[in-house]
Parts: sequence; C-alpha cells; structure tokens
Amino acid sequence: MHRLFYPEVAVVLTARHEAKIGGMPAIWCMPLSFKPALVGVAVSPEHDTYNVINQAKAFAINFMDFRSAKQVAELGDITGKGLNDKLSAVGFSTIEGEATGQPLLQNAEAVLECRFVQVYPTGTHRLIVGEVLIAFANDSFRDYWDFTQYNPILYAGTENTVEQCWVFRSGRGERVTVPMKVQP
Amino acid sequence: MHRLFYPEVAVVLTARHEAKIGGMPAIWCMPLSFKPALVGVAVSPEHDTYNVINQAKAFAINFMDFRSAKQVAELGDITGKGLNDKLSAVGFSTIEGEATGQPLLQNAEAVLECRFVQVYPTGTHRLIVGEVLIAFANDSFRDYWDFTQYNPILYAGTENTVEQCWVFRSGRGERVTVPMKVQP
Repeated sequence: MHRLFYPEVAVVLTARHEAKIGGMPAIWCMPLSFKPALVGVAVSPEHDTYNVINQAKAFAINFMDFRSAKQVAELGDITGKGLNDKLSAVGFSTIEGEATGQPLLQNAEAVLECRFVQVYPTGTHRLIVGEVLIAFANDSFRDYWDFTQYNPILYAGTENTVEQCWVFRSGRGERVTVPMKVQP
Repeated sequence: MHRLFYPEVAVVLTARHEAKIGGMPAIWCMPLSFKPALVGVAVSPEHDTYNVINQAKAFAINFMDFRSAKQVAELGDITGKGLNDKLSAVGFSTIEGEATGQPLLQNAEAVLECRFVQVYPTGTHRLIVGEVLIAFANDSFRDYWDFTQYNPILYAGTENTVEQCWVFRSGRGERVTVPMKVQP
C-alpha cells in the first residue's frame, strides 16, 4: 500500500557521530507541527544511518535538485556499514551545520538542521521526531518554492526492463531511471 | 519550514461517527511501516474531522485525480462544524467501506481503509497512526502507479494575485490555482 503514496519527494538524511558520517535517501519524511517546528522521518532501524542519527542526537534533511537524482539513488544503493563517510563515497561534499555541527550537503537546494527529540516505534520502522533549529533554502524559495531553480526529485518506484531501475520523476513531469548497482 | 516539503500529494481523509461525516484534505500523510501496514497523518486537533476520526476509531485515505483538485480545495475551504455531511456539501459521493464501514469517495483512484491504532501528540498537531486493513486502487496501479489513468494532486502552496488562491501542480507538470472561498 505504501506505493500508493508515490510520487514522494526524496530527501537526503545526513548525520555524523564522532568520525562516522551517515546518509540515506528518505521518502517517508514530513512535517508534524508548526510550532515547535517538528518533522518526522520513518526509518528502518536496520539502516546504518538510523544508528548514526540515534547516537548523534541530531540530523539534517537535505532537499536536492532533480539533477542529483542519480547520486541520491547511488546513496540508497550502498550500505554505510564499514564505511566511515558514506556521503563522500558517492561524491557528496558537505559543510558543517551551524546549529548542530551535522554534515549538510553542499549542493542542497534547502536544508533543515534538526535536533533529535524522540523516537516512536512503528512496526518495521521507527519514527524519528526532530525539531528544526535552522532552515535554509535558495532564492527559489520565498514563502513558497517557485520551482524555477529547484526542480524536486519525486520518487516513483522501480521498473524492470533490461535491468532493475529506480524511477524518479521531476516536478516538471520529466522521468529518469537509474539502474540499481546491485541487481536483485 | 514545512513548505520546503512541497510538492506533496494531497489526499482526502474521510470518516463517519454515527450520523456525522467528516472529511478534509491532508498533505502530512505517509506510510510508517510495511508490516503491519501502518500510515501516519498529522492533523490539527482543531479540525472537526480530527474529532470524527477519533470517535470513529477508523478512517479512510482517498487518493484523487488532478481533475478533482478544485473539489479537494473546496473541502479544505469549509469547516465541518455544524455540518452533518461535509463531503456531500462539496459534491462528493461516497460508498461504505467493506472493512470499516467508513465513507470512501466514489471517484477515488485509490483508497486505504484504516483502523485507528493510536495518536501521538506532536506540537500543534496530532499524529494519527492507522493500520491499513484494505487497500484498493484502479488499473493504473500494478506494483506501482504508471500514472496513465492517475495524475496525482500535488499541493504547492498559495499565491496572491488578484485574489488569494490555492496552488496545485499535477504529476505531469501542470499547474492550477483555485481561489479561496473565504479571502483572508
């Protein structure tokens, strides 16, 4: 049933705990409150990034342009287990967040720096609730996105033609497929 | 910061408790677990529909086509307070859900019938967690949406030109504005 919710904006979660940098694409991510500004992201505890967030007690939500869809897919394709910096492994450069010290993606169109508030168990996943301490966006956002500079990555599932691919659509109706690194 | 998450699919929540039928558009709605199949929807407790769901201990999530964007906006424009059937007030026809007896929108492209599981307080909102008992979708969905028959309603905010309008985008890059009934 979860696929009925597609298309969903694919954000990138990033977090660092000591020398360990984690990151993963997430589509189960949404606001939960205006004031305090709360967001929720449902993550499987099997993901390495879940543990990094849990230990860091902070994380960032990065909104990427459609141009980065392939790179975001690659980030989802690899595991962070055994990697000290999963983000640089797929070519993401980071800067340090002002409010949290967490790694932020340098080419993000918008970023939310979040303090870990609590976690709720939800079946196969855990809902991480964060409070947004700082929000940043490029000039394409004033009150609302005008979608001139920012063209969102909308995750739309997978398809199996010659090989198994991730399917992304853009906010302008474009469609791109990215072959999975590890074919199932 | 919540607007950074746009565009987001606008679903319609529906619920009935005794003679009272409630309904509202929602964009803060996402899956929370594969198995059990859990969904979460963050709703302000000031909404009449929140109370109906809370009393009914069940609700439905309706995925509508872009053709219905205006009607969905109208549903968001009016309050259910003092209305026995908010859905028919804006012209929605309903059928009774098999699993829950809850009202489902007749022209929905997909519907999830949910059992109320619990509610988490999240600042200005309440996160209602539901378990999906039955999921239904039209022929445009097999494993994934192919988006031929179903063209999602993507909420993208408001704009103020001659009058204040809701802004919706479609999955194909179309854009439509719907004047608010009550101008702020």
